[in-house]
Amino acid sequence: MSHSIAIIGASGYTGAELIRLLATHPSFEIKALAANSKAGQPLANVFPHLRHLDLPDLVTWEKIDYSQIDLCFCALPHKTSQEVISKLPKSVKIVDLSADFRLRDPAEYEKWYGNAHSAVEMQSEAVYGLTEFYRDEISQARLVAGTGCNAATGQYALRPLVAAGVIDLDEIILDLQCGVSGAGRSLKENLLHAELSEGTNAYAVGSTHRHLGEFDQEFSAIAGRDVKIQFTPHLGPFNRGILATAYVRGDSDAVLAALQSAYEDEPFVEVLPKGETPSTHHVRGSNYCHIGVVQDRLPGRVIVVAALDNLTKGSSGQALQNANLMLGAPETAGLTLAPCFP
Amino acid sequence: MSHSIAIIGASGYTGAELIRLLATHPSFEIKALAANSKAGQPLANVFPHLRHLDLPDLVTWEKIDYSQIDLCFCALPHKTSQEVISKLPKSVKIVDLSADFRLRDPAEYEKWYGNAHSAVEMQSEAVYGLTEFYRDEISQARLVAGTGCNAATGQYALRPLVAAGVIDLDEIILDLQCGVSGAGRSLKENLLHAELSEGTNAYAVGSTHRHLGEFDQEFSAIAGRDVKIQFTPHLGPFNRGILATAYVRGDSDAVLAALQSAYEDEPFVEVLPKGETPSTHHVRGSNYCHIGVVQDRLPGRVIVVAALDNLTKGSSGQALQNANLMLGAPETAGLTLAPCFP
Amino acid sequence: MSHSIAIIGASGYTGAELIRLLATHPSFEIKALAANSKAGQPLANVFPHLRHLDLPDLVTWEKIDYSQIDLCFCALPHKTSQEVISKLPKSVKIVDLSADFRLRDPAEYEKWYGNAHSAVEMQSEAVYGLTEFYRDEISQARLVAGTGCNAATGQYALRPLVAAGVIDLDEIILDLQCGVSGAGRSLKENLLHAELSEGTNAYAVGSTHRHLGEFDQEFSAIAGRDVKIQFTPHLGPFNRGILATAYVRGDSDAVLAALQSAYEDEPFVEVLPKGETPSTHHVRGSNYCHIGVVQDRLPGRVIVVAALDNLTKGSSGQALQNANLMLGAPETAGLTLAPCFP
Amino acid sequence: MSHSIAIIGASGYTGAELIRLLATHPSFEIKALAANSKAGQPLANVFPHLRHLDLPDLVTWEKIDYSQIDLCFCALPHKTSQEVISKLPKSVKIVDLSADFRLRDPAEYEKWYGNAHSAVEMQSEAVYGLTEFYRDEISQARLVAGTGCNAATGQYALRPLVAAGVIDLDEIILDLQCGVSGAGRSLKENLLHAELSEGTNAYAVGSTHRHLGEFDQEFSAIAGRDVKIQFTPHLGPFNRGILATAYVRGDSDAVLAALQSAYEDEPFVEVLPKGETPSTHHVRGSNYCHIGVVQDRLPGRVIVVAALDNLTKGSSGQALQNANLMLGAPETAGLTLAPCFP
Repeated sequence: MSHSIAIIGASGYTGAELIRLLATHPSFEIKALAANSKAGQPLANVFPHLRHLDLPDLVTWEKIDYSQIDLCFCALPHKTSQEVISKLPKSVKIVDLSADFRLRDPAEYEKWYGNAHSAVEMQSEAVYGLTEFYRDEISQARLVAGTGCNAATGQYALRPLVAAGVIDLDEIILDLQCGVSGAGRSLKENLLHAELSEGTNAYAVGSTHRHLGEFDQEFSAIAGRDVKIQFTPHLGPFNRGILATAYVRGDSDAVLAALQSAYEDEPFVEVLPKGETPSTHHVRGSNYCHIGVVQDRLPGRVIVVAALDNLTKGSSGQALQNANLMLGAPETAGLTLAPCFP
Repeated sequence: MSHSIAIIGASGYTGAELIRLLATHPSFEIKALAANSKAGQPLANVFPHLRHLDLPDLVTWEKIDYSQIDLCFCALPHKTSQEVISKLPKSVKIVDLSADFRLRDPAEYEKWYGNAHSAVEMQSEAVYGLTEFYRDEISQARLVAGTGCNAATGQYALRPLVAAGVIDLDEIILDLQCGVSGAGRSLKENLLHAELSEGTNAYAVGSTHRHLGEFDQEFSAIAGRDVKIQFTPHLGPFNRGILATAYVRGDSDAVLAALQSAYEDEPFVEVLPKGETPSTHHVRGSNYCHIGVVQDRLPGRVIVVAALDNLTKGSSGQALQNANLMLGAPETAGLTLAPCFP
Repeated sequence: MSHSIAIIGASGYTGAELIRLLATHPSFEIKALAANSKAGQPLANVFPHLRHLDLPDLVTWEKIDYSQIDLCFCALPHKTSQEVISKLPKSVKIVDLSADFRLRDPAEYEKWYGNAHSAVEMQSEAVYGLTEFYRDEISQARLVAGTGCNAATGQYALRPLVAAGVIDLDEIILDLQCGVSGAGRSLKENLLHAELSEGTNAYAVGSTHRHLGEFDQEFSAIAGRDVKIQFTPHLGPFNRGILATAYVRGDSDAVLAALQSAYEDEPFVEVLPKGETPSTHHVRGSNYCHIGVVQDRLPGRVIVVAALDNLTKGSSGQALQNANLMLGAPETAGLTLAPCFP
Repeated sequence: MSHSIAIIGASGYTGAELIRLLATHPSFEIKALAANSKAGQPLANVFPHLRHLDLPDLVTWEKIDYSQIDLCFCALPHKTSQEVISKLPKSVKIVDLSADFRLRDPAEYEKWYGNAHSAVEMQSEAVYGLTEFYRDEISQARLVAGTGCNAATGQYALRPLVAAGVIDLDEIILDLQCGVSGAGRSLKENLLHAELSEGTNAYAVGSTHRHLGEFDQEFSAIAGRDVKIQFTPHLGPFNRGILATAYVRGDSDAVLAALQSAYEDEPFVEVLPKGETPSTHHVRGSNYCHIGVVQDRLPGRVIVVAALDNLTKGSSGQALQNANLMLGAPETAGLTLAPCFP
């Protein structure tokens, strides 16, 4: 059975990634592509790499006939997203890739994003989209909130450890290196090739990055108590990929066992043999996440490293995995592309 | 109907690319992977990005049971390739990705590659693997010789023009920019990140690059007279992609028409609207080739620019497209992945 | 004797490069830095890499006390530059890095830049800033027009050949690969790291690039007849450097001899041994230009390859070399930094 | 007064960087360049970017007339270095850039480097080359041991904090991102452009990196007790630069004050305003080190970030700074080049 798909916000990177993945999906068909600032243009103008696909021209999101759409991916900036989604007919299932429905507590949303939420009731309806941990709820959901890409990477490394009680919850440090596509197709000086290539820097230092709202919400919910981690992202001179290096306290065998147990049946999460650690090179362009565990020379200290592609497993691939669940398609449909190396 | 595939030379970049493409092929199954220097190792040791695939360990090519194999991709270095292929049973179809069977004339082979060919009779049997121009012969062939990646790019830009007689055959200059994966996984100082990133240089200047043997052979055959072009490749700081900028003499409308006519039914070659030119960014990781035509300010001078991914359309994608033809599978099977941008 | 220097347009890349070079200049002292959009800010806000220097805060150009300034570098966008420069006191020597005073013919300026020139009389006063070829005029000039960076690279390869009459003037093709800093610190989508890294493309194809105005003017003046070349630039994924590959017709020994003769006493231009060609890697961050000559396999065809750093020899280094001449300082002062490799 | 300099190991990256810096040194003159594997070749063969310098051809180190040499930089691999240095005449001052004389305890050396030290008496003679902290000893030394580049970066961030007693010595985590030139000009698969660009990975995870020997030695000596930190380096796709992100416990104002106090008179170390953090982009190609301090959202947790260029401040620049002290030249001579950005 085939399903009809719309993408709102099709002119950004996560929009392009959704189209790339859907291009080989066996049962989903793209019926509408919206990008209000580029409405009227053929997709090939905005993304020449998708030129070979026979897809509809870009329209405004208001022009879509939602009665023909089974599921809508919404890849808009936060704040805009909640405004648009609150106006969509309730008959349409939605996977939102913005930050707008990730946090369940309106106060937390306002704290991290600086504006009051304008669709509070939908905020509580939304299911958090980290597939492996919300699979049942996602299957039943009308609205799924895609996670932050950094938040996804950190949670793949840490959720099973928090859940299994094998690490000290007050001593979690998460150090990330992020590729630049996570910042979107935005015209900022620090995203220029001349400024960003050939070096690296930390940003949002001091645990001020918005994705901490997700870590706080999720880890605290699992642990049944407040959990607050330290988190420092770095911007690296590469386009795709996030590498999370987590410093935790516990027994490294127990840590490894918790991860293996959590992911042993998962199609997209690979736990490496003990002592090996992953590379973003080896998940690039794919929906796979690799995780490794190493015992530090200091007893009781453990390093967990996770790697994924922020545009795929961290965003659009996750969104499609969730859409598969929501529409009853095989969960892995359209998502088994191998990483693109070199 | 499913077919059984072997890859000899599975530890190099074209081997990895074949496996990546075959991973989503609907009817080909990898039954054996050979890499003599890494025999005995699991594939994940050599290519961690393919870890999620359930594939056989690496063996020596001599260990493969060829009676179980329908088609063998041979991704060995030239010279080694002819030695191995000449020993394979005649029942196995072969797509060779090396340079060994591209040139039909033993003297030309020796001139460009510096050694006498040791399997001359197979050299004449082999069909040149530029799919769009040898489709019927490839469908019937037992041995297909994959083209050089630079040679493929230049020919996509120029073959239809030579064939249609719309350009001056004595005034063809081909300027190329090549990504580094075309040089293979070889330990050479100039391929180190520290030496190659952040700049560019020409190489094989003066029309001394081996792929000229292919240009000479093919263009002369089409034209029915000697055709010798000038050709300068440059090595750029990127992993995948070749951009060919061809300077020709003729009428730009006739040039465009010749390209449009040659490629109008081709699934993988896109001719851009007149005046637009392609980018390697927009074919990356895919089997697509984009071609554009621009009239120079000087009357009678025309620029044709072609872009493809050297590992895909320029090598392993081409090889798979040919294998599909040889085994009666749909020509595009396993090859419709959209480019990976950004 | 020390001289006082001002820089107008200090917040762009050529401004930063001027400051970098002046930082170790033995006799020039920066007295004022202007950048109207960033006036009031310390330089470290705009260029943190210059934080260690004890320099004045940014001001508007109108605020500078020009009576204290011997020479002013003007690194503004074209059109703005002519408006500002026409208002500066005549007592100040000026090196302009914009395009505004490169073309002597107002009609040519308007043709290439799309607007009528607003300071036509200064246009004829200005001396073209290609140091090695206008040294005497530059020494006497009040206003020197820095060349285009592409124009400089192409002229280093070709001027001595046009002058010596050793090549066919109707058969010159110039193919360039340019680093991205040549496009300046401008917020354009195609200059983002995510769009530009990992691939390449041609631009201004069909000989439509503005620097052709300079080639036309200079080559025609030398030859005493109209000379029109073909010129295709490519944008490569690196920050600094231009590689010019020129296809010419003539005798390769005569070509090499003409270059050797032109540059034998030049401190910054190195002609390589015959058959060797340069790399942008090897001039990066320096004021050096490397040039090589190769005989093509086709008789009478010659390839000349030139490499320089667009920000240094192609722009700010050239500007300083000219300023040295204008102020009677040693021509190489502040400019002998070795290239930064790797 | 001028001094005569020799470089042994001139064909590697630290050798090239030494030559680059010495090229503009006012009083040091390179009299001999040794590289046994390339002996007999002109330097331009090995490093074309140094072609413009008038330097002696490469020789074997045995061929140097040490009676004419005041100071010798030794940029050999560890183990080789101790063998060569132990044979040099005692009249020559030596700055060694290898790991061979960094650790004072022979057992520690053997533990981290896997071989017994063959020049134990010189090991105790050698002064550790972190200039700002061993300035007096270095001025008097005959043999100075250049520090590890990672070790230098971490110590710039942490030494003043250990010395001032403002952080918890049992809770130090150091996370590093390193450019690839730190690995030298070695032919390893993971250093190829095709393998290293476009992504990142951790290495020596679990605090197994050799530079920990230096951290252990130095921090323990300062603290007067055993100090063992956790340390994870990452390899990033850039050539130059190290960014150290240190997670410590203490009062952020006290941390900042300790750094400001330690570096206020230092010519090459810049402490940023509180809350700002550095970027490797802004120290590239220079001898400067930038350090920033940020208070985490968790009380008592502080992040200190340091950036330097591994080839300059982390290695060859440090070596030259030490040589200046050893020979009585101004400490900053040849080292005030501004960073090369972009």
